[in-house]
Amino acid sequence: MLKEMLMNVQKNVPLIHNITNYVTVNDCANILLACGASPIMSDDIGEVEEITSICAGLNINIGTLNQRTIPAMLAAGRKANELGHPVVLDPVGAGASALRTETAQRILQEVHFAVIRGNISEIKTLAKGNGNTKGVDADVADRVTEENLDQAVSFAKDFAKKTGAVIAITGAIDIVADYERAFCIRNGHADMSKVTGTGCQLSAMTAAYVAANPEHVLEAVAAAVCAMGLCGEKAKERMTQLDGNASYRNYIMDAVCRLTPDALERGAKYEVR
Amino acid sequence: MLKEMLMNVQKNVPLIHNITNYVTVNDCANILLACGASPIMSDDIGEVEEITSICAGLNINIGTLNQRTIPAMLAAGRKANELGHPVVLDPVGAGASALRTETAQRILQEVHFAVIRGNISEIKTLAKGNGNTKGVDADVADRVTEENLDQAVSFAKDFAKKTGAVIAITGAIDIVADYERAFCIRNGHADMSKVTGTGCQLSAMTAAYVAANPEHVLEAVAAAVCAMGLCGEKAKERMTQLDGNASYRNYIMDAVCRLTPDALERGAKYEVR
Amino acid sequence: MLKEMLMNVQKNVPLIHNITNYVTVNDCANILLACGASPIMSDDIGEVEEITSICAGLNINIGTLNQRTIPAMLAAGRKANELGHPVVLDPVGAGASALRTETAQRILQEVHFAVIRGNISEIKTLAKGNGNTKGVDADVADRVTEENLDQAVSFAKDFAKKTGAVIAITGAIDIVADYERAFCIRNGHADMSKVTGTGCQLSAMTAAYVAANPEHVLEAVAAAVCAMGLCGEKAKERMTQLDGNASYRNYIMDAVCRLTPDALERGAKYEVR
Repeated sequence: MLKEMLMNVQKNVPLIHNITNYVTVNDCANILLACGASPIMSDDIGEVEEITSICAGLNINIGTLNQRTIPAMLAAGRKANELGHPVVLDPVGAGASALRTETAQRILQEVHFAVIRGNISEIKTLAKGNGNTKGVDADVADRVTEENLDQAVSFAKDFAKKTGAVIAITGAIDIVADYERAFCIRNGHADMSKVTGTGCQLSAMTAAYVAANPEHVLEAVAAAVCAMGLCGEKAKERMTQLDGNASYRNYIMDAVCRLTPDALERGAKYEVR
Repeated sequence: MLKEMLMNVQKNVPLIHNITNYVTVNDCANILLACGASPIMSDDIGEVEEITSICAGLNINIGTLNQRTIPAMLAAGRKANELGHPVVLDPVGAGASALRTETAQRILQEVHFAVIRGNISEIKTLAKGNGNTKGVDADVADRVTEENLDQAVSFAKDFAKKTGAVIAITGAIDIVADYERAFCIRNGHADMSKVTGTGCQLSAMTAAYVAANPEHVLEAVAAAVCAMGLCGEKAKERMTQLDGNASYRNYIMDAVCRLTPDALERGAKYEVR
Repeated sequence: MLKEMLMNVQKNVPLIHNITNYVTVNDCANILLACGASPIMSDDIGEVEEITSICAGLNINIGTLNQRTIPAMLAAGRKANELGHPVVLDPVGAGASALRTETAQRILQEVHFAVIRGNISEIKTLAKGNGNTKGVDADVADRVTEENLDQAVSFAKDFAKKTGAVIAITGAIDIVADYERAFCIRNGHADMSKVTGTGCQLSAMTAAYVAANPEHVLEAVAAAVCAMGLCGEKAKERMTQLDGNASYRNYIMDAVCRLTPDALERGAKYEVR
């Protein structure tokens, strides 16, 4: 099933509009090219509606948000909704400042999202209205473990029901859930957190997978999350004694570029709860 | 002839002022260092005239343009004109939104450019006032092929005559033309389009080549275009089974850094029409 | 002594708030992760005080400053002062425009810095109120050499006394000084200047070292400067005939990621004057 998701990305080459932070924007563009999609970045209120109209999907990432880009996020999101384009929200740092928390909440109210992807602290912040995000990382107390997995799955399904979005909570174990089914994914490597923006990259790539598979949003998101994790594993195998996070970053991207649908199907490690 | 162009970049170490998008800005800075020039990035209206005054050339790239940076582009461009510094325009995404098309048109009216470099859809948009750019990529219907090459060369020469700029249209076959002569260049590799910003990088590097060779603008642009394509070829040869677009990006930059004037002269593949 | 500085970074994992330019921001985030710290980037006036409150240190870098971010720098700096968090200033391009020079001066007046790190031309500009920075590089006439080292050390100590900050002047020979002691550091490699942003990266990393070692600011800065230079040396040894500045950039980051406290202690080359 997952292999078809990637095949459709490669076949359709979806153009993805990104309104994203300036820290990891280059990686977001390159990961979209790597997976077979095409990126365009644009955040000015004077063009975002037009830009999103020519795209197949929209990725909104609130890292380094500012007064100029917030209205652009809202305008682009509403336009994408109007056109029926899938929209992905990456609530980077929600819980770390009132501006981020409130902006994320406001966007959630005004725009319908096909997918919301973040770490557990960010997603809890969205669901509960406040949070204890440690900067842009999840708080240790929040982390999803084998012990609290069922509870986290219930939380994700509930939030999916409330928002109508597929919820992707990424961490040591990833959860991808709609209101009734949850993929629990065990791909990935802990060292991926030593590379800035692997989460941002995943959100961008998720937008491409969903845009190419509009009839199978849950499976598309699960495929994107498995793909990113699997590429983190493959990249790890390539590391030498001298390699650090810079080479790891490159190897992950390279692995995404080389990933075949069959390899994704074979390498994906998940169960459905 | 082309080898002298690179020799002069390496000898003069031109400082290039870049007003450019935040997606590929780091690559633009590093490619300028790689080719022997020096970068400075600055886009605030409060300093761009002063910054461009201490530089040898200006590179204006409209990707991720916004209301804050557009006036800075105009002010810097006019100042560079006043001082006789060469200015390069990269009309990223012209045709993809009215804001980009109109901004590109307006800058063209108010600033004289030594060089305009873009893909065929972007350049057609500038020449005709509207276009069908697919995001930031050329539309398939527009592409330059062996069959329509003479027609594309005529178009480039006409637009060069109209604007007084050297026109560089890059794609599978690159055209670098002034009003009477056109270099048709067959360096490069199709996979360069899998790396975001190779076009932006080329525009930045072109500004350096032209700034270092003010008496030979056409040849300087041709040399920069050949150099980028040749480095794309050399980088491709270095790729292993595990390498993807991240490593390719690095190898292209490395090749620019290692390129000697003699290797450029030997490796350039062009004819003049 | 220096090894403890790095051990404390790795143990405390300080979260560093960066208000920095969009050219090298990704490298700043990755170098913080590489050295064992954690980054957050935020520059909107609506959240910078709150963001800096949850962090252990603040890094202010004025490259690509603009009217929107300058007030954010001031607000964050004052808040960090109020909370007793160390603040690092990187006056990128001070001397290259009145906006940069005046902004740097103004920030210096309103915010107390634990560390000011720049090239000799930038630091002279701050000390003297005007300068001859060549873009973002030091002017040749200013450069620190074995011949003028004592004079440069005196200058650094005087400026440290005047500002209450540790002064880090980086170049072929690095000087790290408070009002009475100066580390003269001979790590590093000339080719580091072919990679954009090694200075920005060092400033970000310095903030992490100082935040993790608040009782030993001078030694912490010296350790960060030695670490960066040493990693430039180690990375250089790894270069092949095909590698250029792109690979060098990656290898430097990798070396920072792999650097152990013992290797730092052994590899640091300095004398105290």
